[in-house]
Amino acid sequence: MRVAVVGGGVIGTSVAWRAATAGYRVSLIDPEPASGASFVAGGMLAPVAEAWPGEEDLLELGAVSLRRWPEFAAELERASGLPSGLRTEGTLVVGVDSADRAELDNLADYLATLGRVVTRHSGRELRRLEPSLGPAVRGGLEVPGDLAVDNRVALAALRAAATAAGAEHVLARARAVRAGAVELEDSVLECDVAVIAAGAHSGELHPLLRGAVRPVKGEILRLRARSTALPPPSRTVRGPVHGRQVYLVPRDDGGLVLGATQYEVGFDTEVTVGGVRDLIADAEQVMPGIAEYQLVEAIAGLRPGTGDNLPLLGPLEPGVIAATGHHRNGFLLAPVTADAVLGMLRGETPQDEVKAADPGRHNGGQQ
Amino acid sequence: MRVAVVGGGVIGTSVAWRAATAGYRVSLIDPEPASGASFVAGGMLAPVAEAWPGEEDLLELGAVSLRRWPEFAAELERASGLPSGLRTEGTLVVGVDSADRAELDNLADYLATLGRVVTRHSGRELRRLEPSLGPAVRGGLEVPGDLAVDNRVALAALRAAATAAGAEHVLARARAVRAGAVELEDSVLECDVAVIAAGAHSGELHPLLRGAVRPVKGEILRLRARSTALPPPSRTVRGPVHGRQVYLVPRDDGGLVLGATQYEVGFDTEVTVGGVRDLIADAEQVMPGIAEYQLVEAIAGLRPGTGDNLPLLGPLEPGVIAATGHHRNGFLLAPVTADAVLGMLRGETPQDEVKAADPGRHNGGQQ
Repeated sequence: MRVAVVGGGVIGTSVAWRAATAGYRVSLIDPEPASGASFVAGGMLAPVAEAWPGEEDLLELGAVSLRRWPEFAAELERASGLPSGLRTEGTLVVGVDSADRAELDNLADYLATLGRVVTRHSGRELRRLEPSLGPAVRGGLEVPGDLAVDNRVALAALRAAATAAGAEHVLARARAVRAGAVELEDSVLECDVAVIAAGAHSGELHPLLRGAVRPVKGEILRLRARSTALPPPSRTVRGPVHGRQVYLVPRDDGGLVLGATQYEVGFDTEVTVGGVRDLIADAEQVMPGIAEYQLVEAIAGLRPGTGDNLPLLGPLEPGVIAATGHHRNGFLLAPVTADAVLGMLRGETPQDEVKAADPGRHNGGQQ
Repeated sequence: MRVAVVGGGVIGTSVAWRAATAGYRVSLIDPEPASGASFVAGGMLAPVAEAWPGEEDLLELGAVSLRRWPEFAAELERASGLPSGLRTEGTLVVGVDSADRAELDNLADYLATLGRVVTRHSGRELRRLEPSLGPAVRGGLEVPGDLAVDNRVALAALRAAATAAGAEHVLARARAVRAGAVELEDSVLECDVAVIAAGAHSGELHPLLRGAVRPVKGEILRLRARSTALPPPSRTVRGPVHGRQVYLVPRDDGGLVLGATQYEVGFDTEVTVGGVRDLIADAEQVMPGIAEYQLVEAIAGLRPGTGDNLPLLGPLEPGVIAATGHHRNGFLLAPVTADAVLGMLRGETPQDEVKAADPGRHNGGQQ
């Protein structure tokens, strides 16, 4: 069976790798693979730290996918011969002012009602765990199960694994997807099943996705510790800082990723001075030592947002599967998404945890 | 006569162009032309705004060179067929707090003693001249004669002009310069006269320059007005902002260069988070609208500093000429430097204004 996957980010490449490994004839279509939101991403695997009342389906989906990440990473390393980029040091969620700490208390209380217990720490206890945290950090939560992955390392491994499994890379732009075919700019690629994993651009590819996925701009800074600087924290550390979300995700070799702003301004990937200023200011509240870090890169990407923050994961019509709308959670949800798409290719009944992500959910299941 | 010019920045390329035009056989030696401090520079031509008591020789040298810039630019455009990048809109020097304004008053008083009168303006008058200036700007000086040049546009034109005049480009690294020869990494380039214009690296090339030129790191940000942003000022606008120097130099097409930090940390060209934070904070005091600008580039370079801030311009030994140590003033001093070197090649007596820059000045004229 011929499977055409549109989109060479973390979702599309994961699907292509898994499908090719399972014996399907896979074409992975992207004019610039691994260049979009997945290339920009912070790479947090943080369903618990990002839990939000009313988004229990997303927390459940994320928790299922996070449990699969260690095995996913191990298989990826075997298949690619490359590191997966997974880091298992866990996450601290810290707050600066009293409103921040109240927000964290609410998060801890909410998680407790779901049976998920996180540890509360004072600022002093947090600095004992991560000495680079600054005096402005007054309290926080330890979430050891929330992990992170080096997005670019993982993308390189996924691409190598997909190639090794026999996936064909088609460096072309898809214009539309319909049953049995992906229309490229100058040709048509025929297939038995097409998978739309084109992130924020998915809405342009199929009528049922139009308006269902919107671009949510995010800016991040990539830093590196200079010889005169404190080393990065070993854990991911995230705010709220005076009510604004900021995260510091450590990479190997002294790297540190600061993210992320959030704007709804259309297909705009310019880094703004105000965004950079805010990221630095918030991150310095958490870790003053970053002033001595090198600014290696400032870059912006477009998260594929949906109305309820759940992805769109399931059949759109016979022969066309949506695997998009992963918003802030593309890396987190890659394992569960790839497994779900593989199940759909095999004609299996969708597993319970992905039913909430059915792309037909907004029209009562009608497609 | 064969002339070898070491260093493909603004000074070396200007010398090469002028010397080749005058009929000398010129080799311009640089492994990466136009990639050092000249590529990073803000491009201010500002001898008056940067005047400082005790540095009258530098002011005089800069004023002479600035007067030659319009003709230099016109010849450059004719010779290269490219724009020179010169902007003639003048400069505002603005202050924020009372100490800044006292500093500007001192500057105006000092300039008056030299017979150079500048106009003092209130914050309101300054905002009438440049509506993008923010409310924190409380007063300043108008210096219409201080200009600016787009450094990268000028470098491209200089390089094209040098090529058109017959200069040969040698893409190699010089290791040492002596009478009659420039030692490259794998060969020796013989010449009648060698000109050392290697900026902060000049000290490595000749024993008499060792310790005389030191790297002074500067970080700058290159911005561009987004469609939602106020356009840049038409003039160059510079601080002091709470005692710290900052400048905003407009470029064509909505470009704006923010500079510049100043550190003495050796041969370090990493952009630091703290430097970027300070530049943005200071520039926002002057022009709050930059928050809506795109951050296009953050880059650092090494100014070639000298003990008295004057360049080292003159013969080091028979057959070896120094044209280095221009610190913050490479673009400003390019015309006078190129003219002076041409005079030296011709065996003329140095003009009065460049005598103060004689490289033997620190040892009583002994070389």
